[in-house]
Amino acid sequence: MSESEPIERLVGLLAKLPGLGRRSARRAVLRMLMQPEALMLPLAAALREAAEAVRPCAVCGNLDTRSPCAICRDPRRERGVICVVEGVADLWALERAQVHRGLYHVLGGTLSALGGVGPEDLAIRPLLARVAEDGAEEVILALPATVDGATTAHYLTDRLRPTGVRVTRLAQGVPVGGALDVLDEGTLAAAVKARRPA
Amino acid sequence: MSESEPIERLVGLLAKLPGLGRRSARRAVLRMLMQPEALMLPLAAALREAAEAVRPCAVCGNLDTRSPCAICRDPRRERGVICVVEGVADLWALERAQVHRGLYHVLGGTLSALGGVGPEDLAIRPLLARVAEDGAEEVILALPATVDGATTAHYLTDRLRPTGVRVTRLAQGVPVGGALDVLDEGTLAAAVKARRPA
Repeated sequence: MSESEPIERLVGLLAKLPGLGRRSARRAVLRMLMQPEALMLPLAAALREAAEAVRPCAVCGNLDTRSPCAICRDPRRERGVICVVEGVADLWALERAQVHRGLYHVLGGTLSALGGVGPEDLAIRPLLARVAEDGAEEVILALPATVDGATTAHYLTDRLRPTGVRVTRLAQGVPVGGALDVLDEGTLAAAVKARRPA
Repeated sequence: MSESEPIERLVGLLAKLPGLGRRSARRAVLRMLMQPEALMLPLAAALREAAEAVRPCAVCGNLDTRSPCAICRDPRRERGVICVVEGVADLWALERAQVHRGLYHVLGGTLSALGGVGPEDLAIRPLLARVAEDGAEEVILALPATVDGATTAHYLTDRLRPTGVRVTRLAQGVPVGGALDVLDEGTLAAAVKARRPA
């Protein structure tokens, strides 16, 4: 063995991260070992700090160092509009796009008959409670455009109906900058059906 | 900002690793935040340990917790055969292939007129000293099949000639499992020129 014990352990842990196989984990470790002071020790400290400081927001499920999170605490956000997302990654993506000025609600997944994910496994009850207690005006369902995402959206629409809140979902169509000839038929069909006056 | 300060710092550091952009760094951080105890803290500890324990071998340049490294200390290795590689990643690759039973010598790069890398920037003097002092029988040049790799191999062959050591280099040809029609012309030409009796 040429790779010593601590190197092997580090490669094994890094290889567990999504997007990194053993090969790229090894490359990353070699790069880090070239500059331990500049990269490795700061990374170790940042990991420890994040592991200790970051927790889910008790209101919306976002990850932050405080609960309620910075978004839930922000007085400039529209408190009457709640955007429902599958996971924190989607919340971050919407924040980067800077299109939603309301609050969020992280479900923690989508309903999945195959995956054995039922309503009780997701943060649906807290969502209904928020809508009822805070008197929300609109719930935007920003769920993935998959079968499970659509199932979850239907389910939530049914459950939210008694509250009288307006429920909307994201538009489907041609992605901005997308060429038509590489799009799947489902997306093209949706874009044609939902066509608008030019 | 939805991504809090410690998360941002962690994403920024991870994104510096080769093979990880900001997007995959974010995914990795989210995955880790889901299981801080199982993944984040062990990774932080492994990074700290490796940063403190791993150093270059004073003999061959390999990375290990001790110097001389495990390979240089191993009494079962053939001490008369030294395989010269560009970097530690190449040494690890050869060890995984289990084809070389001798020792190694890590150059730390290849000569590059464009990159401003001269003989003094590489571990060439220590290599000549090792060959002279240890009475090596063979030096295998396992350098990349690039212009800079070939230049370095020529230079080393010239410098090693006075010592009388046998200098060899890796064979070039068709990769095992490789289809011919996707190979570049240079490799095909080399494989035809170096053809052997069937």
